[in-house]
Amino acid sequence: MSLAPFLEGCRRRVDDRLAELVPPPGHPPGVVTRPLHFALTSPGKRIRPALLFAVGGLFKAKDESLLDTACAVEMIHASSLVFDDLPSMDAADLRRGRPTVHKQFGEAMAILAGLDLLHRAFGVLAAEASRRRGYPLAEMVTLLSGAIGVSGVVGGQAVDLTSEPAGVDLATLEFIHSHKTGALFIAAAEAGGLLAGARPAERTAIVNYAKNLGLAFQITDDLLDAVGTPESTGKTTGLDRNKATFVSFLGIEGARRLAGELTGFAEECLAPFGDRGELLVSLARFVRDRSS
Amino acid sequence: MSLAPFLEGCRRRVDDRLAELVPPPGHPPGVVTRPLHFALTSPGKRIRPALLFAVGGLFKAKDESLLDTACAVEMIHASSLVFDDLPSMDAADLRRGRPTVHKQFGEAMAILAGLDLLHRAFGVLAAEASRRRGYPLAEMVTLLSGAIGVSGVVGGQAVDLTSEPAGVDLATLEFIHSHKTGALFIAAAEAGGLLAGARPAERTAIVNYAKNLGLAFQITDDLLDAVGTPESTGKTTGLDRNKATFVSFLGIEGARRLAGELTGFAEECLAPFGDRGELLVSLARFVRDRSS
Repeated sequence: MSLAPFLEGCRRRVDDRLAELVPPPGHPPGVVTRPLHFALTSPGKRIRPALLFAVGGLFKAKDESLLDTACAVEMIHASSLVFDDLPSMDAADLRRGRPTVHKQFGEAMAILAGLDLLHRAFGVLAAEASRRRGYPLAEMVTLLSGAIGVSGVVGGQAVDLTSEPAGVDLATLEFIHSHKTGALFIAAAEAGGLLAGARPAERTAIVNYAKNLGLAFQITDDLLDAVGTPESTGKTTGLDRNKATFVSFLGIEGARRLAGELTGFAEECLAPFGDRGELLVSLARFVRDRSS
Repeated sequence: MSLAPFLEGCRRRVDDRLAELVPPPGHPPGVVTRPLHFALTSPGKRIRPALLFAVGGLFKAKDESLLDTACAVEMIHASSLVFDDLPSMDAADLRRGRPTVHKQFGEAMAILAGLDLLHRAFGVLAAEASRRRGYPLAEMVTLLSGAIGVSGVVGGQAVDLTSEPAGVDLATLEFIHSHKTGALFIAAAEAGGLLAGARPAERTAIVNYAKNLGLAFQITDDLLDAVGTPESTGKTTGLDRNKATFVSFLGIEGARRLAGELTGFAEECLAPFGDRGELLVSLARFVRDRSS
């Protein structure tokens, strides 16, 4: 299967199911279900769910056994964007071509919607476990909880926000982004492997693939921020101008080269899977090329 | 067992265990583990864990089988306080005799610490399930996730923040607080019953007890805000002066009377348990009397 229809199929399946997993906009109390819905239905690529589906598919899991877990991952991601964009964090006005959630609904309601999405994600996993015999709930909750906390997204964001740009070296920058972006990529891939019953060695290969992919994704995000416009990227650009980024360290060409190297490493991790890894190879190339 | 040593024992056990369940303050990244620790070690009463222990004990569960779940409930509560106190929410400067988390560490780090606590709570439940055969993880995650989301704390807070004081009637006020405060009381009590293997009819009685207790707790909170000083209550008082509260509706005496009625109802729910419900009766009276 080629990548574009695969991504489009994932996006549609996830968006349809997400709409069922949250109260409709306006369901009381509407002051919080409207921003909740807004945060979740933003026109994103749903790349983390796609990664979960691609990894699960590699090990022959059926799509329907992956769907709700993929939706939980997307809820956590959507929630993290709501928090990242807040005035006390990155202070962004625009996201995926629309106002950010706090710009549209105010800060308090944005925070409450973000909190609901987080808990809801765990509730979705629990509901799935109640329906599916043998669902690895404890492992899945551990995986996603760890990806968000101090040792994951939260830890990366904390270091990002409190580092003086002048004091950030490339190692710190890698720490920030391997946590802030990488952790949820890795968790999504691990979740796919876990649900599909992949063996430990296979899961290690997949984690290494996702690590490289996540970091490459962040670098291409930096590139889009540096070279893109709000019209082309759908979000506030130039926010990073006073921040240490891969572009500020390496320049545009250097950052592009690094993204290429990392997605190359990601592809190498797939060697044990031969032709079966084709979709994940295409995904890595898609990430590499999205900023060119 | 009389109430005071029971409460003190719960508090000590929970605080000791919480210290083991989070990274020590200063563990990297310290910018977020310090506020995390600060939020969690505030000198509170740990009344929700105590409720969980008392209900579990009523059905003969051993304390050690309840401890980590009680800690997860306290993490969620501590997290909800961090968010409630934020400038965009209740804008409180003082909590339990100390600066609020955002006052001490800034808004961004407070939010990140609050987020970590929330996920960590689910991680703690998952770890407990991995250790204890037969731990009802799916039910527990469903219970706590639901208590926090739109149908629980988040929903109550959303309505609270967006209601014009003049437009709030007593029914709305009850909606707000049965969600904002009541939901986590009910979840704590339900968790105790679930872990102890209480039967459905018993669990219904306990839920009704906790509903009344939670609302009474909120009313006595309003009373403390109205009649207390920051010195006596350890938090910013008078925040509610321009808000609809049980005191603004019913006056001091009326609010006291209602708290007494509700704790009376709570006691009645315990009738099926006879003398075994003694500790929960004492807990209800403690809540009733804490503002006098």
